[in-house]
Amino acid sequence: MDVEQLRDQVLKLTQVGIALSSVHDIDDLLKMIVREARHFTCADAGSLYLVKDDHLYFAISQNSTLKKRLGKDGERALFSPFSLPISTKSIAGYVAVTRKNLNIPDVYEISEDSPYSFNADFDMRNDYRTRSMLTVPMLDHRSKVLGVLQLINATHDGKVVEFDPQLEDLVHSMASQAAVAVNNAMLTSEIKRVHLDTIMRLSVAAEYKDKDTAQHIQRVSRYSEALARQLGWPKDKQELLLYSAPMHDVGKIGIADAILLKPGRLTDEERRAMQEHTTIGASIMSGSDSPVLQMSEQVALYHHEKWDGSGYPQGLEGENIPLVGRILAVADVFDALSSKRVYKGALSINETMEILKKDSGSHFDPQCVEAFTQILDEVVEIKEKFSDDQENI
Amino acid sequence: MDVEQLRDQVLKLTQVGIALSSVHDIDDLLKMIVREARHFTCADAGSLYLVKDDHLYFAISQNSTLKKRLGKDGERALFSPFSLPISTKSIAGYVAVTRKNLNIPDVYEISEDSPYSFNADFDMRNDYRTRSMLTVPMLDHRSKVLGVLQLINATHDGKVVEFDPQLEDLVHSMASQAAVAVNNAMLTSEIKRVHLDTIMRLSVAAEYKDKDTAQHIQRVSRYSEALARQLGWPKDKQELLLYSAPMHDVGKIGIADAILLKPGRLTDEERRAMQEHTTIGASIMSGSDSPVLQMSEQVALYHHEKWDGSGYPQGLEGENIPLVGRILAVADVFDALSSKRVYKGALSINETMEILKKDSGSHFDPQCVEAFTQILDEVVEIKEKFSDDQENI
Repeated sequence: MDVEQLRDQVLKLTQVGIALSSVHDIDDLLKMIVREARHFTCADAGSLYLVKDDHLYFAISQNSTLKKRLGKDGERALFSPFSLPISTKSIAGYVAVTRKNLNIPDVYEISEDSPYSFNADFDMRNDYRTRSMLTVPMLDHRSKVLGVLQLINATHDGKVVEFDPQLEDLVHSMASQAAVAVNNAMLTSEIKRVHLDTIMRLSVAAEYKDKDTAQHIQRVSRYSEALARQLGWPKDKQELLLYSAPMHDVGKIGIADAILLKPGRLTDEERRAMQEHTTIGASIMSGSDSPVLQMSEQVALYHHEKWDGSGYPQGLEGENIPLVGRILAVADVFDALSSKRVYKGALSINETMEILKKDSGSHFDPQCVEAFTQILDEVVEIKEKFSDDQENI
Repeated sequence: MDVEQLRDQVLKLTQVGIALSSVHDIDDLLKMIVREARHFTCADAGSLYLVKDDHLYFAISQNSTLKKRLGKDGERALFSPFSLPISTKSIAGYVAVTRKNLNIPDVYEISEDSPYSFNADFDMRNDYRTRSMLTVPMLDHRSKVLGVLQLINATHDGKVVEFDPQLEDLVHSMASQAAVAVNNAMLTSEIKRVHLDTIMRLSVAAEYKDKDTAQHIQRVSRYSEALARQLGWPKDKQELLLYSAPMHDVGKIGIADAILLKPGRLTDEERRAMQEHTTIGASIMSGSDSPVLQMSEQVALYHHEKWDGSGYPQGLEGENIPLVGRILAVADVFDALSSKRVYKGALSINETMEILKKDSGSHFDPQCVEAFTQILDEVVEIKEKFSDDQENI
């Protein structure tokens, strides 16, 4: 390799590093790592393992030859998840233990004296011939092994060749950049998960006396998210709604026990006081510059508005009701009708959908009811996943 | 530069990229960027500007010569924050607009025809001679200009020389890696900020009826954080406490209005019911695998325990009370005494501290009271920053 070639490789390498650092979805990131490392080394195939406890978990695999032969779905079907103990007996394990690159010209000619050996099962089952293999550890900035990257069958002019030893350092660097990117993506996803957990718990707490369950809040939030997706919202806005929806009833915190817990029918005055949970909720969230809290303010304020203008607190009509309010109305009522409460049994999904359809155009935005009908399978899945019988959120 | 040298540079470069990606504190990150870029190019000095709206904000500066002459504090005092409009008239502005490197052998010999010119004020004021200057844009993965990195006076054998044009691409790459790292750090810090905002708001909401103010919750949380720092807790644990402390009274959500809002003295039975806000709060947070929620469970459960065992709910004694509980006890009581409530005036800081000291060893952990006394200046600052007169949290 001359200076010019090396220069090009380097610039490519840092571009990859930059690209990796800016992907925050872990699955997308892992795919990108294997794809870019394969391109960089002209490898026919590649796999990535992640370390968890004392095992290597097979996370992703790409194989250009098999993809051509079997199509994308066929390629995907070949790889089932499995894990390896971290030991020097396997090639990936050996690299995880020694934390050094391993560049093997032909895996079928590994010496008997080697601690590791090649497992030919995959080749036999799929009529593939693995030959050259470059395996590198994914070391993070503290030199902790986060995973192992395995590149298979370097190709040159259509023939399988050895991996260029000069590229080893660069691939090693790329794998480390990848490790840090994976660490960052995991950190971000962890912070977000905790954020959602906090919102869920505090929202459940807000309905402590009302005995609305954690499961009710989970379901309404997930129905809303799914409905937003069906309505074509972009992914980040769907996520905002998932985070905001749990807070739709936090205003109930401000309602007097005498009204909130009254067993019988409310008087007109009491009902008006009860309806204030929408404005109280909105005031709790108001004035924030965070998109989540801004949306939760809208969710709290508008989830009891009705399409025909007969709702509260503002009596808005049709598209004057912000869409988040119209989405929540469908999700909230669906869940109320299809769940058991102390004072009533649960309606079946069919009975519930009949009511939603009957009230489409009066209570509900017809477009939302229509979209909700289209995702009914997913709704049922959510309903089962967060059923009232289970306690964990 | 031969292949070997380039190779070394490259490996150094990717190491820097990896190191940058793993720093999450923005200030630390900016310092690291300038420091590493200076080392990489043997530059005597360096500065970094960040883009905000249509201005470049001077974020950081390092100058080895002036540091030797003036010491660290002297060096720091030289640089006061300022901003430049993004236009081609300044060197940094020109680079931000054109998004290309600018490698100037001597800034005092910039041609009159150039759109940009060098501002010699700094040199004159500080008896410094800027000569060679390499200025590169910090482009993120979408090629958006996030900032500008300026390196000053490349040195070789103790003499100022031009910046090696062969290094330009590499510095450009480094600046882009830095841009992505800055983006990521900002994203993480934004998610965390929103998380804290959410916790604060929902905690305030939980005390809606109790009329404990947002400011009370802010102050108690900040006092607790400062006290933990004084007690020698590591930074990440201090932060956990800042996030957990707001939730110390969320259990009040479960207390009946008749007790929570009773104006007069509580009966024994009512007092026992009121005390359940500790266990209710803990139950709301229980069973989470998130460190923030685990700590908030402890905060809720133990903040009314007393050092001599006379507190509730468990009547724990001395160091059997988890330290978070002992910290919160001091912070919470300090704030209650030193703030005005509907039914009482505010005590002065001195009066409040007298009471804390008197009850040290009975109500409070003596070590916590002692540490709180040591940070009294900071406590007063927090008290003023989050005073009840201002409404914003």
